[in-house]
Amino acid sequence: MRSLELKNRTSVEEIQKLRLVTAVKTPYLPDGRFDIEVYDSIINMQILNGVEGVIVGGTTGERQLMTWDEHIMLIGHTVNCFGSSIKVIGNTGSNSTREAIHATEQGFAVGMHAALHINPYYGKTSLDGLVAHFDPVLSMGPTIIYNVPSRTGQDIPPSVICKFSENPNLAGVKECMGNDRVKEYFNAGIVVWSGNDDECHDARWNYGSTGVISVVSNLVPSLVHELMFQGNICLNEKLMPLIKWLFVEPNPIGVNTALSQLGVVRPVFRLPYTPLPISKRKEFVDIVKRIGREHFIGDQEVQVLNDSDFTLLGRY
Amino acid sequence: MRSLELKNRTSVEEIQKLRLVTAVKTPYLPDGRFDIEVYDSIINMQILNGVEGVIVGGTTGERQLMTWDEHIMLIGHTVNCFGSSIKVIGNTGSNSTREAIHATEQGFAVGMHAALHINPYYGKTSLDGLVAHFDPVLSMGPTIIYNVPSRTGQDIPPSVICKFSENPNLAGVKECMGNDRVKEYFNAGIVVWSGNDDECHDARWNYGSTGVISVVSNLVPSLVHELMFQGNICLNEKLMPLIKWLFVEPNPIGVNTALSQLGVVRPVFRLPYTPLPISKRKEFVDIVKRIGREHFIGDQEVQVLNDSDFTLLGRY
Amino acid sequence: MRSLELKNRTSVEEIQKLRLVTAVKTPYLPDGRFDIEVYDSIINMQILNGVEGVIVGGTTGERQLMTWDEHIMLIGHTVNCFGSSIKVIGNTGSNSTREAIHATEQGFAVGMHAALHINPYYGKTSLDGLVAHFDPVLSMGPTIIYNVPSRTGQDIPPSVICKFSENPNLAGVKECMGNDRVKEYFNAGIVVWSGNDDECHDARWNYGSTGVISVVSNLVPSLVHELMFQGNICLNEKLMPLIKWLFVEPNPIGVNTALSQLGVVRPVFRLPYTPLPISKRKEFVDIVKRIGREHFIGDQEVQVLNDSDFTLLGRY
Amino acid sequence: MRSLELKNRTSVEEIQKLRLVTAVKTPYLPDGRFDIEVYDSIINMQILNGVEGVIVGGTTGERQLMTWDEHIMLIGHTVNCFGSSIKVIGNTGSNSTREAIHATEQGFAVGMHAALHINPYYGKTSLDGLVAHFDPVLSMGPTIIYNVPSRTGQDIPPSVICKFSENPNLAGVKECMGNDRVKEYFNAGIVVWSGNDDECHDARWNYGSTGVISVVSNLVPSLVHELMFQGNICLNEKLMPLIKWLFVEPNPIGVNTALSQLGVVRPVFRLPYTPLPISKRKEFVDIVKRIGREHFIGDQEVQVLNDSDFTLLGRY
Repeated sequence: MRSLELKNRTSVEEIQKLRLVTAVKTPYLPDGRFDIEVYDSIINMQILNGVEGVIVGGTTGERQLMTWDEHIMLIGHTVNCFGSSIKVIGNTGSNSTREAIHATEQGFAVGMHAALHINPYYGKTSLDGLVAHFDPVLSMGPTIIYNVPSRTGQDIPPSVICKFSENPNLAGVKECMGNDRVKEYFNAGIVVWSGNDDECHDARWNYGSTGVISVVSNLVPSLVHELMFQGNICLNEKLMPLIKWLFVEPNPIGVNTALSQLGVVRPVFRLPYTPLPISKRKEFVDIVKRIGREHFIGDQEVQVLNDSDFTLLGRY
Repeated sequence: MRSLELKNRTSVEEIQKLRLVTAVKTPYLPDGRFDIEVYDSIINMQILNGVEGVIVGGTTGERQLMTWDEHIMLIGHTVNCFGSSIKVIGNTGSNSTREAIHATEQGFAVGMHAALHINPYYGKTSLDGLVAHFDPVLSMGPTIIYNVPSRTGQDIPPSVICKFSENPNLAGVKECMGNDRVKEYFNAGIVVWSGNDDECHDARWNYGSTGVISVVSNLVPSLVHELMFQGNICLNEKLMPLIKWLFVEPNPIGVNTALSQLGVVRPVFRLPYTPLPISKRKEFVDIVKRIGREHFIGDQEVQVLNDSDFTLLGRY
Repeated sequence: MRSLELKNRTSVEEIQKLRLVTAVKTPYLPDGRFDIEVYDSIINMQILNGVEGVIVGGTTGERQLMTWDEHIMLIGHTVNCFGSSIKVIGNTGSNSTREAIHATEQGFAVGMHAALHINPYYGKTSLDGLVAHFDPVLSMGPTIIYNVPSRTGQDIPPSVICKFSENPNLAGVKECMGNDRVKEYFNAGIVVWSGNDDECHDARWNYGSTGVISVVSNLVPSLVHELMFQGNICLNEKLMPLIKWLFVEPNPIGVNTALSQLGVVRPVFRLPYTPLPISKRKEFVDIVKRIGREHFIGDQEVQVLNDSDFTLLGRY
Repeated sequence: MRSLELKNRTSVEEIQKLRLVTAVKTPYLPDGRFDIEVYDSIINMQILNGVEGVIVGGTTGERQLMTWDEHIMLIGHTVNCFGSSIKVIGNTGSNSTREAIHATEQGFAVGMHAALHINPYYGKTSLDGLVAHFDPVLSMGPTIIYNVPSRTGQDIPPSVICKFSENPNLAGVKECMGNDRVKEYFNAGIVVWSGNDDECHDARWNYGSTGVISVVSNLVPSLVHELMFQGNICLNEKLMPLIKWLFVEPNPIGVNTALSQLGVVRPVFRLPYTPLPISKRKEFVDIVKRIGREHFIGDQEVQVLNDSDFTLLGRY
């Protein structure tokens, strides 16, 4: 499916200039459906705090727990309501090439500005297979390839990325393998975003990354903005305990717990995610106080939630 | 799912003022996917010829042959590309209340301006069931209820519509039961659109309809515009042979055949629709010539297609 | 998809001999999922009372309110648990040819003995389209074509059926157009089942139908068995008030209400179906007493349920 | 959904006795649909060669590339045609708890004898989350938990398994972490199958595994049978080159290539899987000759296929 309509289309160059992109949380109603009102307020707060792009339905946004129609709807909704204020990047990747093709086609049709593509996690494939997987989706529009071997079980080696370096739709790479890899791409002239909050400041100022695709910016967008636009070693250090806390369990467990305690989202989890334990929930309140509640999104007082405050959903 | 975002939201009053809405054709690629480029050019031509709204995935647009993700995508796409120039009304009705609720929620989330809702065709239900079916979807946004007993096997009686007459989201009724029924609604202060092209001129000027939700406007939008905005008995007469031809077999068989021969869409049909036979296809060319090719959309010469020119798809 | 495995395969001739087939009710749990325990007990009672076949997910079984995966699962389940005792006929028809092809392929793959195919309701098509719709699915296995114009809005004329009369997979026709049409098929050597409970006795004994595809046999299977195997004019008369009651509103409203009051199923309705009103629910108890509770399935006393006893589900 | 029907139900003890289970290949037609005829012949050959169970839609069987309705259909089909000759274990696990619950419910409803459950790959979760993920599905029927960190990015530690050791539905663990872990489970009285073909002989005879869930048994079922039932160090050594070849790229790339060259399946790949390169395809022919063609399934001569012989499908 192709459209000649250029409204809302974004050039690869515009994507390549983004310094701060948030892998945004998807909030839920108690019955498990999306809480669109809260989602909209989250996106608004992201925009007001200088965030330039969002990954819709990233791993943080729990695409893995969505049906495809939920996901495409959320992309279309975000474009429709916020597409002129923020870049909307749909995580339309999949470990099934068929699904990646279908979702990416649909995502661009509803106006997303760029696609995020993962290599086939779990099922994995050969290097030839990786190329054959990315090739059809790259033809569809601006694309960021996402490398996170700790989740996928397989590194995308630079040799595969380089096969696509001449492709006019390759915006760049979201890289979680560390800053040496970031540097390698920078040296090769390939745009790269850090996918690790704890390394993103150094990645930006010392290793050549353009910016970050961030989780912690769900919580403190203006501070991450400062890290990416001005640079601030002290601030970076100051954020480390928060970042460590955030990733003590697989993301998005931390960010889900945090946003619940900040009163920004209802404390509703789609399984297999469960809240951090009470000890960690108490720690979070201390961390917030240390950094300053005013730097976090939301306007309610941060609180320690009880186990009984959380709703965990297996059927929804 | 609710959104506080008001961008692109349309008031019921704006929907109620629409005089010319096209139940727009969905064009296909040879492999059965949507032909989005052609779709966009069709919508553009509709806008240029004064059409004020489109039904996306109406019966004419073959919602019955779409998956829901295809449909929601098409609604989101239309809003994104054309939503500021034309009202986008999604046919998110279903004979399953669950599906109607889910699709309508998604349709409004991606920005559609109004929903079209059918009563439960095929499965049918009681009058109590009709009320219970429409009630949850009416709460979601501006709504047109669609009555077409020749398809659904069941008339929606005015008594059911009247139950919702105080509902602030009821924009009105698309009525195919004829002009006496149109008059009845007009007298009761309920906005009504004719759903029958052959009766729409009289409905508008003699029976109180606001306008038409039209199929023939896929072909001659500017002429139907004249019927609805100026009124023209002679023109109305002149169009009758075209309208008769169009509905010689169940819609959208005629409009699919016509747009193929006008060179506007590829001659690709999703089964169970098949083209009109050769004798009728020849008739169409004569009808076009009589009315004037220039009044029809598209810029290619009208031609008689051969059976072998058509692609009929069962698997896609 | 084709399978060489012949286990559970049934010849067209075996299907053609069935005199009593029940369009079986699908019962629900309070959250809207299938109540498989109750379903199994229903099927068991059908078998014990001489019913020879079931339509799984017929209109009565509310296929129109199922997802396809629910439907295929239910067919597979029925085959697996009861396939050696009763013929399992899956209602894998659709108004979308693509869906009919896909579902029929899957239904035969999980072992259903025959398919029931409807013409494209709501969307409708031409006679050419009807032939093109039935053709690909008839190649897959034993098939019953279902004609019910009051639901579909379109009669399947005998001329279309006759096009398939030489097809070795055509088992016959489920006909709701009345006994003259039944006779017409009988005379033409085409097997036909009555689809109308009120006419089925005469259809069987006076007009040449093989038997019935019945709704009322959900309630009184042994009595319908007597009608079809022995014939009994008095019994037929005696059942008329029950049958009239059953269809006072569109089926399956009556049978859903009845089975709830018989204590056979939980009083859970998927919308748009709602229970019959209290006056009719009282009438049912009288009817049961007149015919004799012992002829009805289930072993609980029949009762009048209150409005508050029923659960009506829009989301599930 | 629960069913009282016990037909085809299998006790946990029967599952625990299985020594040879094949993670069976899913073959495709050129248009990407399942090739059910070939699938049936594969299952037949497995049965004839002493295989006692199959994983339907395992990673080898490419569940990750199926829709859920395809998968449930395949489970139901296998039960229906072969359920009395072989145990049918459906890979109804998912990284989404909702999907795992839904698919497992459906799988047991269509008669599968046991479920295989993976931890949430890619999305990952905490140990609490793992327990919350497995808990609802374990209540449904006999269950094997599958641990393969190289794919999931996360080890299931014995502490999590032990939480379920008293659960009467836990049949055991399919373990890929190596034979020390196998031994650990054996010592704890937990049934364990090796998930690594290269270690399975030792696992069985030296480390206490009950048997193997095997990929190589797709090719040489009778030889793997000998390994598991008699034990044969020489044979085990002899098979090592085949096993090494098979896993030179992520499974099922090797087995797909091998079965294509053995003439057992059409050389059709769903992307992101692509065939092994020509050098490896040549190697395979040598390996077959060394081991003896007669030990491999199929009766055609093994051949080296050309690149052009393969069909690679992105859309299907």
